Amino acid sequence: MAPLAGDFTYGQWSAVYNALSFGIAAMGSATVFFWLQLPNVTKSYRTALTITGIVTWIATYHYFRIFNSWVAAFEVQQAGGDYAVSVSGTPFNDAYRYVDWLLTVPLLLIELILVMKLPAGETASMGTKLGLASAVMVALGYPGEIQENLAVRWFWWALAMIPFFYVVYSLLAGLGEATAKQPESVSGLVSAARYLTAVSWLTYPFVYIIKNIGLAGPTATMCEQIGYSIADVVAKAVFGVLIWAIAAEKSRLEELSKPGRR
Amino acid sequence: MAPLAGDFTYGQWSAVYNALSFGIAAMGSATVFFWLQLPNVTKSYRTALTITGIVTWIATYHYFRIFNSWVAAFEVQQAGGDYAVSVSGTPFNDAYRYVDWLLTVPLLLIELILVMKLPAGETASMGTKLGLASAVMVALGYPGEIQENLAVRWFWWALAMIPFFYVVYSLLAGLGEATAKQPESVSGLVSAARYLTAVSWLTYPFVYIIKNIGLAGPTATMCEQIGYSIADVVAKAVFGVLIWAIAAEKSRLEELSKPGRR
Repeated sequence: MAPLAGDFTYGQWSAVYNALSFGIAAMGSATVFFWLQLPNVTKSYRTALTITGIVTWIATYHYFRIFNSWVAAFEVQQAGGDYAVSVSGTPFNDAYRYVDWLLTVPLLLIELILVMKLPAGETASMGTKLGLASAVMVALGYPGEIQENLAVRWFWWALAMIPFFYVVYSLLAGLGEATAKQPESVSGLVSAARYLTAVSWLTYPFVYIIKNIGLAGPTATMCEQIGYSIADVVAKAVFGVLIWAIAAEKSRLEELSKPGRR
Repeated sequence: MAPLAGDFTYGQWSAVYNALSFGIAAMGSATVFFWLQLPNVTKSYRTALTITGIVTWIATYHYFRIFNSWVAAFEVQQAGGDYAVSVSGTPFNDAYRYVDWLLTVPLLLIELILVMKLPAGETASMGTKLGLASAVMVALGYPGEIQENLAVRWFWWALAMIPFFYVVYSLLAGLGEATAKQPESVSGLVSAARYLTAVSWLTYPFVYIIKNIGLAGPTATMCEQIGYSIADVVAKAVFGVLIWAIAAEKSRLEELSKPGRR
């Protein structure tokens, strides 16, 4: 990435700083919640819930790294009645987000597929297709993200949108059919998880093109960092809570229908 | 190892930086996954799964060390519209990789042998033979890795290839027989694990000879570090997922055939 350009105000700098710290707290606490809930679901849903926690755990690691990189990239000093912010010369490493997505986005889709408990063959084929398509999507996004040239940014954005639409379409249409086969009390939750994925995913391409729609310098960087942080918390932690709710409800139904139950 | 030579661009430096951080995240999350899955397999496979997690855990430790060593070995400063990278004079310690392999490579083979659940005598003899051969292989590779002299590199490479071929041959031929004795629903997975081992292992001797086939300086170092990182993630984390899948499927079959089961 090119060096951070322009003069950040203390307000802009600390808005990003606090959004990143919020990311650490939200992802870290979601991780603990998911893993502590493992004994409360039946064996069938433990792998889905384990992966749900792995996704937020990987994100916790990366939010720590992004936070530390943000702090190292600036010098903040009192200047009269305010604080003056200047770049320190140490690079701010934005690649952490892409490394994170490369690992977590395929896993997110796999946790959704696992919690639906489809026949084994369907689980494997959907997991492979959606997992690979989402990894390609992230890989195609990166070359544009590190570019200042707006035409080149649009080019990679458009390429990444192809697997993006494939995944979102599969979620809405393909999994829609499977949703209909879920027990009545969970089909609403599964449907919510599918739509939450679609909506939270749609934020990413918009944050990506912030620089292409006229914003530049510190304001663009601030909107990008805060936008990605909120989208990440929704797509990983809030989405994970839905996965947990589905797993818990389906576990309850399984226990009810056990033959040996008094 | 000789000091790092040549001028690294910021792109080369950060490609290695991000590959190493990817290593930390991938190995760390794989470890948690394997250990959280322990209650989900029967007792027979818990040792194999524990060791699978130990392998990625040792790798997580070493990737942290290699990452920190990489950061300490350079100074990165903003220079106009880009970043300038220069060596700091602090050594980059490549020996971490060899210490890691000395511990993890024999363990990797042992986890594969354990998950096959062969008769006790066969498990012990195969574990000893493959474990020792692979440790000798790693030990023979190191003297060449720290050499700049290409003839000496080739000499140690060739020596290390002797135990290397012995291990790969044993996996493909010797374990091939045992694979045939596995239950039908897992023989495909076991076979996949054997081939993944062979293929991912084959990347190492190629990465090793990067310097011998004309690449030099920063480009060679970058390709080496990224190549080893990807090979490690495949050989330890992805391979581990296959070991887990085998253990989970064999556990399911064991539970099904339990006499007391209704």
